[in-house]
Amino acid sequence: MKSLLKASTKFFSYCNVLNENTISSNIKNAQYAVRGLISVKADEMMNEMKRGKVFPFNKFYKCNIGNPQVFGQPPFTYHRQLLAAVMYPELINMGLFPIDVVEEAKEIFSSLGQNQNIILYSDCQGLKKVRESVRQFLLESDQVDSNISKIFLVNGASDGITSMISLILKNPNDSIMIPIPQYPLYNALISLNGGQACPYYLNEEKNWAIDFEDLIKNYEIAKKKNLNVKAIVIINPGNPTGQLFGKEDIDKIVKFSFDNNLTILADEVYQNNIYINKKFVSFRKVISESPFPYNKTMIASSNSTSKGYLGECGFRGGYMELMNFPEEIVEQLRRARYSSYSPNIIGQLLTEAMVNPPKKGRNSEDVVSLYEQEKAVIHKGLQERAIIIAKSLNQIKNITCQPIEGAMYGFPRVFLTPKAIEAAKSRSLHPDAFYSVSALENMGLMVVPGSGFGQKDGTYHFRITNLIWNKDELHEMLKSFSKFNEEFFSKYS
Amino acid sequence: MKSLLKASTKFFSYCNVLNENTISSNIKNAQYAVRGLISVKADEMMNEMKRGKVFPFNKFYKCNIGNPQVFGQPPFTYHRQLLAAVMYPELINMGLFPIDVVEEAKEIFSSLGQNQNIILYSDCQGLKKVRESVRQFLLESDQVDSNISKIFLVNGASDGITSMISLILKNPNDSIMIPIPQYPLYNALISLNGGQACPYYLNEEKNWAIDFEDLIKNYEIAKKKNLNVKAIVIINPGNPTGQLFGKEDIDKIVKFSFDNNLTILADEVYQNNIYINKKFVSFRKVISESPFPYNKTMIASSNSTSKGYLGECGFRGGYMELMNFPEEIVEQLRRARYSSYSPNIIGQLLTEAMVNPPKKGRNSEDVVSLYEQEKAVIHKGLQERAIIIAKSLNQIKNITCQPIEGAMYGFPRVFLTPKAIEAAKSRSLHPDAFYSVSALENMGLMVVPGSGFGQKDGTYHFRITNLIWNKDELHEMLKSFSKFNEEFFSKYS
Repeated sequence: MKSLLKASTKFFSYCNVLNENTISSNIKNAQYAVRGLISVKADEMMNEMKRGKVFPFNKFYKCNIGNPQVFGQPPFTYHRQLLAAVMYPELINMGLFPIDVVEEAKEIFSSLGQNQNIILYSDCQGLKKVRESVRQFLLESDQVDSNISKIFLVNGASDGITSMISLILKNPNDSIMIPIPQYPLYNALISLNGGQACPYYLNEEKNWAIDFEDLIKNYEIAKKKNLNVKAIVIINPGNPTGQLFGKEDIDKIVKFSFDNNLTILADEVYQNNIYINKKFVSFRKVISESPFPYNKTMIASSNSTSKGYLGECGFRGGYMELMNFPEEIVEQLRRARYSSYSPNIIGQLLTEAMVNPPKKGRNSEDVVSLYEQEKAVIHKGLQERAIIIAKSLNQIKNITCQPIEGAMYGFPRVFLTPKAIEAAKSRSLHPDAFYSVSALENMGLMVVPGSGFGQKDGTYHFRITNLIWNKDELHEMLKSFSKFNEEFFSKYS
Repeated sequence: MKSLLKASTKFFSYCNVLNENTISSNIKNAQYAVRGLISVKADEMMNEMKRGKVFPFNKFYKCNIGNPQVFGQPPFTYHRQLLAAVMYPELINMGLFPIDVVEEAKEIFSSLGQNQNIILYSDCQGLKKVRESVRQFLLESDQVDSNISKIFLVNGASDGITSMISLILKNPNDSIMIPIPQYPLYNALISLNGGQACPYYLNEEKNWAIDFEDLIKNYEIAKKKNLNVKAIVIINPGNPTGQLFGKEDIDKIVKFSFDNNLTILADEVYQNNIYINKKFVSFRKVISESPFPYNKTMIASSNSTSKGYLGECGFRGGYMELMNFPEEIVEQLRRARYSSYSPNIIGQLLTEAMVNPPKKGRNSEDVVSLYEQEKAVIHKGLQERAIIIAKSLNQIKNITCQPIEGAMYGFPRVFLTPKAIEAAKSRSLHPDAFYSVSALENMGLMVVPGSGFGQKDGTYHFRITNLIWNKDELHEMLKSFSKFNEEFFSKYS
């Protein structure tokens, strides 16, 4: 009995070994809205539905995450054939694939000077062949060369950004400027690394343009608080806000960054998701064309296989390129990344196919025209839906939505009534979380509450993707949503 | 002129924005030996060789990294067919693959309730279907059940371990016990997270068994230094040391861990790489069979698709399972991992095929027998080479090597002469790094110097893989090595 008591005491003291007070406070402080409340709640509801519970709707619209293939956006034939060939090289000589695929697969094998087993650990920065292709792509896109020693292949853009932020943040008062609204990855990573976010606001009335007065004001507030502001995050095209910055604004940001000793972290993963008649201009291009000394601004730019035309989220591919970084710092970044050994090879090869797709003059006509046709269908669909969504939302009571110029999201504002705000309080929810949860419960719509991205006090938003592939389904969703919204506001008016 | 001067001054002050003093000191402090000196040097030499420089050898033996397919270890037919089918579903109905592969691919599609596009972001813990298979595998292997909410699919075991260590370390005096010699991932991660490593030594004379007296002594030294020791890393089978712990030793470690409030981090990625007539026993099994309260010891165990029979390093697949962790802490681990969204799906599906391979009774005889045959060939090769390497090294002058019971490495000791140690100093190298560099320069052998793993002061080692697939090549390497060693010691005797 005594020994049992002793064992139990021991047990209870052991149970406290890892608890909320003894684990990393940085992790405790990290928030990540996109996979938060709505995901968890919808997951529960899907399980209940499977077990036979009846809801006022019979399907969920997963418009919360930028996961294009969920709604049926097809992958590119060439890209998938190439990866299947690498996966199982016996397929190569079976006459299944166009000669272009066969040759490219062989080229990949031989570039590695290996047998056909190439799904090995690579260099921690990724395969040289792929980095060389990324370099070519950057040169052709921007007319600005790079160097493969400055290119890091990554497990999705978030992976490179994670390393970069962990490198930059040293002391607890180190700070990184982030847009508000922002993609919550940034907030979370700054917390995880024990730094502080310094916000700058995008101006909704001016279609989410950067408000430079506000930017300077917030920078100065941070300095007064003794924060050491070291970098600035730019998301272009914007997530969740969908705007596309022009050269003039980018110029101003570069000047501001250099003048205030900031490194630019340019999140350009949506560079191919543009729906207006305006060209994407990369930050690195603008920097390289700036006069001395602004052409020396340090920048890390990210791109991904998860977005753009590909939308191949599950592969975790992409790259990060550093410009104007001293070699010592690049070397430190390598060190920070050694412990993950190597980005996954399939993601690396998909990155290869993304930056080096079938091309007129080099590839056979059939392969090029299939690729171009698949790309056009995807782009047209994204563009049409971006227009339909913004237009439809603007016709709905108490909702305004800025044009979706790029990326994969609308970020409409909802003018919530005092009664709705009161009701939210009674459910202990942020007002826009309450609105989003209501939409979920009512019609199965999954969107992300604006509070997860940050927004001006007293304003309420949600983020909705433009990814519902089938146009009838999209219209059906918008109709249900309009009905839900009508009911919501008659209940809480 | 004046403005140019001003611009230049500005430029020089900006250049200092990110420098070795302003970046994260944790990264600066991290060391990672396996991808260090020898890799970099060999890379340079390979480039020189390509450019026509003549070396005293004509090929490199890449025995430094546990990358089995580099030497031609083939992947499993079933596994690669399945992944190719998922990659390009059009292949499924072409009659190319056995019905088993087709059915499993369809099963994967339907389990996700999706169309055939399943390479999407998954839950941050990974696909439920795969986690369920991991659970079944753990239940069958250990007769100890798990719960899919405690299973995390990861981008290679290192990924899960990275998250775990970042969760555990909170304050600068937080410490984790690691074996010496250790796999340098642990050292690096503890530095990256700003904690302190507390060493415990393995006893070379007793074939790298744990020296419990030393373990307790080192724990007490750490306590006296006011370190807060929170966890203990166990690598079994051992890397770089190749030993296999028996149940008795595991029992003792469990007791020690519980009594001293430690969480166990069990690195069991080599659980299928066993070359002696002794069974692998998992830590979780021993814990679950311990009497109360020792059966409540917290443990995170890791397994990987990169090792074992598969050796598929480039996929970055694997899992980490938590036992006896309170749900709040599991939830915090999820939060720490949200920012990477989802482990890569191809790695997840390879994990599925690893834990749920073709099986008698369920799969067709052809598929099962091909799988079993491929497995036997791989296992037999690894085993034979483990024996040959240890035996041959023991016949070489000034070298002793413990039996390679498991994993993929020998960790021979080299008895360096005072003259060799002197010569190392003159090249500013650690003595065993000097020995390893000499082997590289002399005969193209790539091994990792023992100093990168830690070793008893005054002893010198290197780590060598047992992965050279072709036996003639292995013998040729050992012969060259013996010759090199002979010359080395006649030069430095």
